[in-house]
Amino acid sequence: MIGSGFGGLFATKALRDAPVEITLVAKTSHHLFQPLLYQVATGILAAGEVAPATRDILRAQRNARVLLGEVTDVDLEARTVTSVAPNGATTIAYDSLVVAAGATQSYFGNDHFAEHAPGLKTIEDALDLRARIFGAFELAELEDDPALVQRWLTFVVVGAGATGVEMAGQIAELAHRTLKDNFRRIDPTRSRIVLLDAAPSVLGSFGERLSTIATRQLAAIGVEVRLGLKVVGVDDTGIDVVDHEGHGQRIESMCKMWAAGVTGNPLGAQLAAASGAGTDRVGRVEVNPDCTLPGHPEVFVVGDLMALEGLPGVAQVAIQSAEHAAGQIVRRLQGEETGQPFRYKDKGSMATVARFHAVASVGRIRVAGFPAWVMWLAVHLAYLVGYKNRLTTLLHWAHSFIGRGRAERVVTRRS
Amino acid sequence: MIGSGFGGLFATKALRDAPVEITLVAKTSHHLFQPLLYQVATGILAAGEVAPATRDILRAQRNARVLLGEVTDVDLEARTVTSVAPNGATTIAYDSLVVAAGATQSYFGNDHFAEHAPGLKTIEDALDLRARIFGAFELAELEDDPALVQRWLTFVVVGAGATGVEMAGQIAELAHRTLKDNFRRIDPTRSRIVLLDAAPSVLGSFGERLSTIATRQLAAIGVEVRLGLKVVGVDDTGIDVVDHEGHGQRIESMCKMWAAGVTGNPLGAQLAAASGAGTDRVGRVEVNPDCTLPGHPEVFVVGDLMALEGLPGVAQVAIQSAEHAAGQIVRRLQGEETGQPFRYKDKGSMATVARFHAVASVGRIRVAGFPAWVMWLAVHLAYLVGYKNRLTTLLHWAHSFIGRGRAERVVTRRS
Repeated sequence: MIGSGFGGLFATKALRDAPVEITLVAKTSHHLFQPLLYQVATGILAAGEVAPATRDILRAQRNARVLLGEVTDVDLEARTVTSVAPNGATTIAYDSLVVAAGATQSYFGNDHFAEHAPGLKTIEDALDLRARIFGAFELAELEDDPALVQRWLTFVVVGAGATGVEMAGQIAELAHRTLKDNFRRIDPTRSRIVLLDAAPSVLGSFGERLSTIATRQLAAIGVEVRLGLKVVGVDDTGIDVVDHEGHGQRIESMCKMWAAGVTGNPLGAQLAAASGAGTDRVGRVEVNPDCTLPGHPEVFVVGDLMALEGLPGVAQVAIQSAEHAAGQIVRRLQGEETGQPFRYKDKGSMATVARFHAVASVGRIRVAGFPAWVMWLAVHLAYLVGYKNRLTTLLHWAHSFIGRGRAERVVTRRS
Repeated sequence: MIGSGFGGLFATKALRDAPVEITLVAKTSHHLFQPLLYQVATGILAAGEVAPATRDILRAQRNARVLLGEVTDVDLEARTVTSVAPNGATTIAYDSLVVAAGATQSYFGNDHFAEHAPGLKTIEDALDLRARIFGAFELAELEDDPALVQRWLTFVVVGAGATGVEMAGQIAELAHRTLKDNFRRIDPTRSRIVLLDAAPSVLGSFGERLSTIATRQLAAIGVEVRLGLKVVGVDDTGIDVVDHEGHGQRIESMCKMWAAGVTGNPLGAQLAAASGAGTDRVGRVEVNPDCTLPGHPEVFVVGDLMALEGLPGVAQVAIQSAEHAAGQIVRRLQGEETGQPFRYKDKGSMATVARFHAVASVGRIRVAGFPAWVMWLAVHLAYLVGYKNRLTTLLHWAHSFIGRGRAERVVTRRS
């Protein structure tokens, strides 16, 4: 297994009772529950709540061992993987390989944007964004010039998908509720939160009705939604955009974040080149219908790194494709016929817009508002790993949603 | 107020109802509950639980404002303070000044030890140590050479005061309980945890009886206590010590930490030089019996930066001296006589050695074992700021002490 995200973890768990020896190699020692990462960035949850130690999750699974390391090379002929850790490189032989190395933030060729508008893919990203967001209010409090104050209090989120909407919604909650009485000179409720996208709608994948409701709700909590705008520049003090007609505009802002796109882990391109498989435009590997690499029935690519029938890069696809790969491995061990195509069962998708307000799309049902928020709550609690995490998460949520506090505001680095 | 530790925070709170305008300047945006910092380092607590946002604690106190900044200069004649933040310097005028800038780790002139044996004074320190401790187990799992494995699994704590004892005790718990089933190649229970001190006893300030009990208890949980040893060198792979007779010895260890001494914030030396006050051998300012700076009845130095009658650098001294300073400020405002000497009421001290085992010294009473541990639990919960923090802390403690988990094992930087 390569990766400790949903793909690597669920593939490992699915092989719990199989007569195999599993080595899970990952570059972090934790499993990241990415759908709640934005809550770490906005001070609701502690890092440990969304990132339990992988080896602790798997401690009772005796056929699995966990190794820290970044896989830099896969030798498809020799069937070995090279993993690099701070204390040296290791070569690991495999009979079957599940590649679940995931995706990273994409700046569409403008990687220099990253310094000024970090993404939200790792715990480091979340803690960096937390420092930038809370730091912006701190530094605004120190400014005398109203223009500079406003620049610190303008937050720009690029990308109006689920992550972007959730980030913008939470920053609005921060500004309007959490920080209300915290300052003496600035008024946090006068913050400007801008949600930008080149697309014509927010949460496009949720369908027109939910998109409209979400847009209205975002406006109600104070998020300025700006669509049809392409980002052409990001620097220390602002962001430059152009509209469809080519008219440019600048938004002065010290705190920008990027939630506008992903690209497959570079390992994907390497595997594709070695096997002759194609990659799609976001660097994901085009696999066979059974999730295997063309010409290599022993190698599976699952989750965010897999390009198959346009399936989106969401947790459910990662979990189900990983379980499919595990099933195929077991069948092959038992001498049964393999090659069954992966069939994705869409369990729906949801996004929280604000406190007590979410949108959910499940099958043909579209729900919005409080009922969707309750669904969101239940589903996320159910999927969180570990009972203790569920309990403290519930407490943090009660504190943030019913009360108005944020327990995890600790900032360790200044931005 | 300079500083957001116990001194700055309690002085501010004590002036809640006084007709004053308070500016609290601190270089972190959180108040640090330092006595539990070792639990952040060992993965029991989240950073937010011991470091709530200062401005959130003070949000209802309308006469207090909180500014982020490091005070680099105090002009005693002009009665101004210069504070430097990432976006510029500010000069703040004062009528009364309470300096509670605290202390930092001291390496007794060997500052180059710091890189290899970090101290435990800030949240950054705690997260750095957390990465080193959990990282050492991860990297040990990757080694083939038994000598290298043992080097990763040897943990050296320098300084057998309360912090050192608590760190060593928690690492022993980690190795023997928490990580028990987490690894496949290494056996964490074979870790070596060494607690070093140049002094002849552990927890010397607790008296002979408690010191003996603590030493015995440390041995029982697998901590190797080595006394009368002076550290003469620390490098990447080990630590060099000499005994009283000058015999040298090397302990091979990748993970070292320093809890052996503190030195006053440099601001102390500056104030002493400007006012003609003396400093003691650890850089604390020698103040008048009423905590004022000699010749400056309007300037108070409290807490860890204050040298007065040999009072120790503990939370209770900081809290009580800060409240004394606040009382003096109020008396001066009301035209009453000032100059009353600060009288410290020793409420006792305690240290946890292991799960369910602590030592406590209160007045003439000496308690050890489970009763002392229950006292420790009650006192620390009572002093934690905020109800939510108490609740989640209690949950984390139940998880770690009754269960055997550590919820906060997230490592963001590799050591």
